[in-house]
Amino acid sequence: MRLGVCYYPEHWPESMWKDDAARMKALGIDRVRIAEFAWSRIEPSPGEYNWAWLDRAIDVLANAGLKVVMCTPTATPPKWLIDRHPDILPIGADGRPRAFGSRRHYDFSSPSYFEASQKICTAVAERYGKHPAVAFWQTDNEFGCHNTVVSYSPAALQRFREWLKHRYGTIDALNTAWGTVFWSMEFRSFDEIDLPVGTVTEAHPTHRLDYRRFASDEVVRYNRMQVDIIRAHSPQRPVAHNFMQLFTEFDHYKVAADLDIATWDSYPLGALEEQWFDPSIKSKWLRTGHPDFASFNHDVYRGMSKLPFWVMEQQPGPVNWAHWNPAPLPGMVRLWSWEAFAHGAGCVSYFRWRQAPFAQEQMHAGLNTPDNRLDMGGVEASVVAKEIEQVLEADGESTVSTKVALVWDYEAKWLFEIHPQGADFHYPRFAFEYYSALRSLGLDVDVIPVDAPLDGYKMIVVPPLPVVPADFAGRLAASGAQVVLGPRTGSKTVDLTIPAALPPGEGIAKLIPIRVWRVESMRPNVTEKVDQRGEARHWRDFIEASNGVQVEASFADGHPAIVRSGSVRYLASLFDETLTQEIFLNVAKAAGLNAAPLPEGIRISRRGGLTYVFNYNATPYRIPAAVSFIVGQDEVEPQGVAIYRA
Amino acid sequence: MRLGVCYYPEHWPESMWKDDAARMKALGIDRVRIAEFAWSRIEPSPGEYNWAWLDRAIDVLANAGLKVVMCTPTATPPKWLIDRHPDILPIGADGRPRAFGSRRHYDFSSPSYFEASQKICTAVAERYGKHPAVAFWQTDNEFGCHNTVVSYSPAALQRFREWLKHRYGTIDALNTAWGTVFWSMEFRSFDEIDLPVGTVTEAHPTHRLDYRRFASDEVVRYNRMQVDIIRAHSPQRPVAHNFMQLFTEFDHYKVAADLDIATWDSYPLGALEEQWFDPSIKSKWLRTGHPDFASFNHDVYRGMSKLPFWVMEQQPGPVNWAHWNPAPLPGMVRLWSWEAFAHGAGCVSYFRWRQAPFAQEQMHAGLNTPDNRLDMGGVEASVVAKEIEQVLEADGESTVSTKVALVWDYEAKWLFEIHPQGADFHYPRFAFEYYSALRSLGLDVDVIPVDAPLDGYKMIVVPPLPVVPADFAGRLAASGAQVVLGPRTGSKTVDLTIPAALPPGEGIAKLIPIRVWRVESMRPNVTEKVDQRGEARHWRDFIEASNGVQVEASFADGHPAIVRSGSVRYLASLFDETLTQEIFLNVAKAAGLNAAPLPEGIRISRRGGLTYVFNYNATPYRIPAAVSFIVGQDEVEPQGVAIYRA
Amino acid sequence: MRLGVCYYPEHWPESMWKDDAARMKALGIDRVRIAEFAWSRIEPSPGEYNWAWLDRAIDVLANAGLKVVMCTPTATPPKWLIDRHPDILPIGADGRPRAFGSRRHYDFSSPSYFEASQKICTAVAERYGKHPAVAFWQTDNEFGCHNTVVSYSPAALQRFREWLKHRYGTIDALNTAWGTVFWSMEFRSFDEIDLPVGTVTEAHPTHRLDYRRFASDEVVRYNRMQVDIIRAHSPQRPVAHNFMQLFTEFDHYKVAADLDIATWDSYPLGALEEQWFDPSIKSKWLRTGHPDFASFNHDVYRGMSKLPFWVMEQQPGPVNWAHWNPAPLPGMVRLWSWEAFAHGAGCVSYFRWRQAPFAQEQMHAGLNTPDNRLDMGGVEASVVAKEIEQVLEADGESTVSTKVALVWDYEAKWLFEIHPQGADFHYPRFAFEYYSALRSLGLDVDVIPVDAPLDGYKMIVVPPLPVVPADFAGRLAASGAQVVLGPRTGSKTVDLTIPAALPPGEGIAKLIPIRVWRVESMRPNVTEKVDQRGEARHWRDFIEASNGVQVEASFADGHPAIVRSGSVRYLASLFDETLTQEIFLNVAKAAGLNAAPLPEGIRISRRGGLTYVFNYNATPYRIPAAVSFIVGQDEVEPQGVAIYRA
Repeated sequence: MRLGVCYYPEHWPESMWKDDAARMKALGIDRVRIAEFAWSRIEPSPGEYNWAWLDRAIDVLANAGLKVVMCTPTATPPKWLIDRHPDILPIGADGRPRAFGSRRHYDFSSPSYFEASQKICTAVAERYGKHPAVAFWQTDNEFGCHNTVVSYSPAALQRFREWLKHRYGTIDALNTAWGTVFWSMEFRSFDEIDLPVGTVTEAHPTHRLDYRRFASDEVVRYNRMQVDIIRAHSPQRPVAHNFMQLFTEFDHYKVAADLDIATWDSYPLGALEEQWFDPSIKSKWLRTGHPDFASFNHDVYRGMSKLPFWVMEQQPGPVNWAHWNPAPLPGMVRLWSWEAFAHGAGCVSYFRWRQAPFAQEQMHAGLNTPDNRLDMGGVEASVVAKEIEQVLEADGESTVSTKVALVWDYEAKWLFEIHPQGADFHYPRFAFEYYSALRSLGLDVDVIPVDAPLDGYKMIVVPPLPVVPADFAGRLAASGAQVVLGPRTGSKTVDLTIPAALPPGEGIAKLIPIRVWRVESMRPNVTEKVDQRGEARHWRDFIEASNGVQVEASFADGHPAIVRSGSVRYLASLFDETLTQEIFLNVAKAAGLNAAPLPEGIRISRRGGLTYVFNYNATPYRIPAAVSFIVGQDEVEPQGVAIYRA
Repeated sequence: MRLGVCYYPEHWPESMWKDDAARMKALGIDRVRIAEFAWSRIEPSPGEYNWAWLDRAIDVLANAGLKVVMCTPTATPPKWLIDRHPDILPIGADGRPRAFGSRRHYDFSSPSYFEASQKICTAVAERYGKHPAVAFWQTDNEFGCHNTVVSYSPAALQRFREWLKHRYGTIDALNTAWGTVFWSMEFRSFDEIDLPVGTVTEAHPTHRLDYRRFASDEVVRYNRMQVDIIRAHSPQRPVAHNFMQLFTEFDHYKVAADLDIATWDSYPLGALEEQWFDPSIKSKWLRTGHPDFASFNHDVYRGMSKLPFWVMEQQPGPVNWAHWNPAPLPGMVRLWSWEAFAHGAGCVSYFRWRQAPFAQEQMHAGLNTPDNRLDMGGVEASVVAKEIEQVLEADGESTVSTKVALVWDYEAKWLFEIHPQGADFHYPRFAFEYYSALRSLGLDVDVIPVDAPLDGYKMIVVPPLPVVPADFAGRLAASGAQVVLGPRTGSKTVDLTIPAALPPGEGIAKLIPIRVWRVESMRPNVTEKVDQRGEARHWRDFIEASNGVQVEASFADGHPAIVRSGSVRYLASLFDETLTQEIFLNVAKAAGLNAAPLPEGIRISRRGGLTYVFNYNATPYRIPAAVSFIVGQDEVEPQGVAIYRA
Repeated sequence: MRLGVCYYPEHWPESMWKDDAARMKALGIDRVRIAEFAWSRIEPSPGEYNWAWLDRAIDVLANAGLKVVMCTPTATPPKWLIDRHPDILPIGADGRPRAFGSRRHYDFSSPSYFEASQKICTAVAERYGKHPAVAFWQTDNEFGCHNTVVSYSPAALQRFREWLKHRYGTIDALNTAWGTVFWSMEFRSFDEIDLPVGTVTEAHPTHRLDYRRFASDEVVRYNRMQVDIIRAHSPQRPVAHNFMQLFTEFDHYKVAADLDIATWDSYPLGALEEQWFDPSIKSKWLRTGHPDFASFNHDVYRGMSKLPFWVMEQQPGPVNWAHWNPAPLPGMVRLWSWEAFAHGAGCVSYFRWRQAPFAQEQMHAGLNTPDNRLDMGGVEASVVAKEIEQVLEADGESTVSTKVALVWDYEAKWLFEIHPQGADFHYPRFAFEYYSALRSLGLDVDVIPVDAPLDGYKMIVVPPLPVVPADFAGRLAASGAQVVLGPRTGSKTVDLTIPAALPPGEGIAKLIPIRVWRVESMRPNVTEKVDQRGEARHWRDFIEASNGVQVEASFADGHPAIVRSGSVRYLASLFDETLTQEIFLNVAKAAGLNAAPLPEGIRISRRGGLTYVFNYNATPYRIPAAVSFIVGQDEVEPQGVAIYRA
């Protein structure tokens, strides 16, 4: 459990550096991320490197006893590079290059950029790879931010054709897999395949899905190139990347597989404003964020990180990039920090040390205001630093362990986006709602990929998962866990076609012998009653249940809403919050788990031997039973934290 | 009265064909539409035709006693053709070609495509024109689908200039007709005329309207080319095209004039979701469709079909293409089928035999599920097949006859779209609302073009009709019918200018001497009271009424809302549903028609000697008087049908 | 006080001209604007001028005793000119040229167009500059209409680089001022600078702001060129331009500095529909316009006009260009006319003499209908003409004088649009709301630029003003006035960075020693209570107040909402209508002004020795005290006007 901060020495007079470093240290920070946007200062002109300032900056930090998280600066190629290689710019769906002048203006498939990236990464890694203060690395910055995973460039098309050739072998195999006979879309060679964009009506869904898979693989390849260079020049230093919150445009599992640490950038207020939540929810949690949003991300990234995951950027105050940017309530920066640690974080690093008074992010708060006074977030960080000592003393560097797993999948997002069948079928939302229902019961959750080992789990929840690997049903059965399958599970083959025997497909149907013979999507002003228990929204699977399958709830028109076969339940729809919670509570009990509904706004996590309580409400919360507190007390103040040994 | 089905042998293993054909026949189907998207299988490479599979498929169908509706495959030109002639692709309003990869990726004005179409149509027509099982033809598929009537290509511009030259003769005549002196838009030659797109503010309205007329004429010309080829090679077989529901982007009367049968594709649920209806209406008729929507289309296409019109594609279950896709209630596929026959259909053909498990439409239901079991729609079709026999026995191949006409016009849609004056002035909506009011009174309606003979009608309703032919007023007067004219009738000349003596123009003003001296459009949250009778919405004409014109209702500010001169009424606004119904009821009574409000959700049609009752409600409906039933009984079940001799 | 009209002889048969002129004169009109769209008639082919028709038209007007406002026809370059110089067309943000076919299809930076404009302006000015009937000039028409200030053309880029070079001197100075070190956006030379458009995420805010400044300066330069030509050839004739209502895309103060008369085009109903107002407000003032909207514009343009400002185009009935176009209530054309005069107008000129029956604006009413009968607006204009005589007799050509100033700034609009921090932070709205609150208290208001002399004012209101000139605080203090500063005042430097000591910046902080250490923007469904007095919306500044600063109101969480230091108040948020009015009332009282809330819909203005009362309501208004009336009486009818000597 450490604190860190993001710092941009290049933004400030060198005269301030030493004081900055000293104040960081005094605050309790000991990791400092630098240089991820500094290319134009490192290499102001082609081939002319200016290391001096950076050498000095690192030395100042090192001298203050700080450890550096060194970054490759590839998220912001400088103007001279773009002018030399205009093909670096990604191409939008409108066929136009996206211009220089902000960041991430590069195409993952551009050969020029791949080469330029190798060069600058090698230069930086050679320079600082063995510097004693450089203890960690970060590749690039927020892959995919601002919708930059997919580019429609000639270079991407070229590589996509190769990718398809590799995947399908022959054009006939592709034609068969996709079903291009439909609408005479058959190809005679891979060279006839175009970008799946700009068509008269929707392009072929498998074409689109494969393009998303390809684009994701391009990110993997690009990151791996950087990791390889860093490892070659900087042995023993863990390599990280800072992922984004609930970001789904590439397969994070595959990128993380090449890293040592998965980190993510946590901005709970911006996320609330920009995600799918209703306006009433947005005003309810306006200045705290949704009580499950950061947690969900913590659990996602914990699951894919070899070393304890980090929050690489923690919101320290109001941000600048949401449509509206409220100020966090007093206590929230501390609460968010502890929430990260409760979920297993190894480090919480605040973004940024000091608010910059210029350029695009000048309205983004830091730990310090632009006039260099400690801001509210800075004060709270210093509190956290002291509390860390108490907790470490009580419990050491413990880990999170739970019996509940939720499956989270990236291709599911792409597939449902490409082929939604109902305009608001938003996979991340539904996965989050399942997660939130589990958390509202006081359960700790592992978020796992569909190919993760399942042993040891007592309850496994599967949000709508269209493509199910062949061995998944068998592994679910072997786990012995209570299983909940969401609607549309197994509804597609890997080629985005309907399974031969209809959903949920052969494998799942062996677990629970049902046949989804019809589906319907429901517009937002339509719901369906589920017995007297609640309401269905968005979607209905029409289920034909074989003998032995128990119908646990029905729609008003008599079609099954919840069916069960042994320990496996299949939900034919997406239910309201209360009904979902009720179902999960029953399943948790069947799994022998200790679950009970928490008051709204209260969340509990366990790490090592300690229990962490978080109060998102505007009123105090009294912890029911007498406990021994490390931090806080039994009356948890609004936006407060309590940590105790149960 | 026949049943048909759309079938894609190329999508399925040849081993399934024989069983498919036998099951179709057994179900009561005897017409099978094929091949409209099969170009890449017919001509896999340039000039290399592969007829063998199609020969065999037709033979299998023929051997089962089925009649084939053969299609030209021009809606989906294959990739190799596009690569050879990229100018085939239509150009969007953004100046970019719309890409290959779905369907309808062709420009009606492309000379390359015209030639390629002639070639493939000739090849198909030569091959199958005299095949004994090929009993009907369909040209192309759904002209204009996915917004493909208008293209902004150089080829279109070239032909548009010729079209203008033909229409106006001299550039001076065009300048005068359009009024290009306004804003110095004068042209010195036809070659100076550009596409009416991308201008700084709105392009000249007459320029835009003429471009729409031109684009419509291009569809007519393209279809006629196909019809001519088919007729040359396939004598005695009726030629059809499958139009779309409430589609208005070309003049259907002109295309239909070259055909033997007008057919249309009926998807009541998708239409409800995608059309203008309020969310409350969308949820009210969620799984039945609006009670007047299919009927309106039946009456539109009956009016332009030389032989009895068909439903070429009938929704058999949930579809895939609306934003949300609900499942039809049990009985609706049967109800829709009978509704078509009640309105005079010669054939109802379901789309499609079996749901395809791949590509864009994999979520579109068929009569059979992808695992080849009969779906609900298939079961209902088989019921219809048996009922047809009873009805034919009772009444033969009868026809529809009515005394009520509603004028429906395509240019009106374009004109009001180009020059709305109020942002929600949506012509199809207002025409539909008038039609719906008539149907709610139990009246059968002929939907007619403005140049149709009017003799024999007792009541003629004219929704807002901006351009009135010179002889229309005379023909209305000669008909002796009671006439209702909507607002904005006669508000424009054929050149989209204001008539010299102001609306409703000289001709109409002879029928009813009024002068519309001012107009106003009303935003959605504004209505105006009409006496104590109801409310006006969207629009007001300010009327100066000459002596002898009777003011039958007024707005609160004293301006006339309804005026009458003899048998002609002019409505100054678009009224709410109740007031519209009340007005039409009074007019119908004046016309001596038997009209009375039906309960909501109940509709009645008459064909030959029989009366058809349709119950769109969730509750049973009891037919008031004792009658002799051919199908059903006096208590009509929810989503039920009754057919009786009155 | 004169009446005028806009007239297009080229639209009508020459046979009508004489009668038109005679009827204008008889109506009381004596100024006629002509020729602003007549280029294609003046120069039908390159270099071939046709003056004859225009000579005759001017003579007809002159012979009727009318004075001509002659226009340069540059708003509508003819087709032949565009075909010769396609670079005249402006380039959109999408990189595509905006096409010929409407108006304003020119790029202010195009050298071809600058030259062509010089040529046509010189030709027109030479021809008519000394004509005795040509008494005024108008340059072009509505600069910037249809979003035409900014073009993304190569020509604009070229000139922008020069502009930057001139502003910053060296590229290092620019890099420092903008803070391009952020995200490695540093430039090595001015030639590396691109257009601030099409970037992956938002382009650099200072880059964008400077581009807006540059584009505004291009309008200034273009107008000045025309003014210089006119002055050279037409001595002693005042030169005007017709600005638009609440238009903010260029700095009107700078353009007006080159003119003799600032005029504007007043369309109160279209403005209400198209501006930010809530639907409830849009329906409330549907057929009158907002009671403060025209007034605000009058006060804006009065402030920048050397001679008395004009309304160059006055709405005479329904217009065509808003999404919905209602009809003004009876009396409104008269009311609007008198409102203009009450605010100091020298002339009210109606648009247009007669509604044109063709082209884009055929649904725009005139004083006469297309069939040449006097329309309602024409009747009301004739009433105004007679009333003018009475008022001139009573009070002569008097002027407006007031003690209240509101600061209005164009860069503020651009800056907040570029860098809003809250998506609905719309500067014109907030400035208007402050103005409206002042007007609701019966105060007359000068709208002034931030660099205007402040002497003589007793109350100065500053809506959110991000960039405050160095001497502003000093001038405020010196004025002795009561001052109200809106939130975000002084929040930015001229380079769009945060002031070193935080907002409100050094200068303002000397007046009122506060430090805005944090801000938050509030989504539309969020408000904050201000004591028990009202609600805050949109925005909150978090204020640290030094000793001596009085907190006059607080938010529920204790942060100051209103602070005061002596005569200077700073508002930390944008308050609801009632609270804003209450605050301003208190300040007005402190300033010794005679202020009191007026009934809703009633407005009062003073000019010379007379008081003007306007009743926007549907019910009569009784003027409280006995007065001596020049026009009207103590009971002011709905939509009525009364003018009296107090």
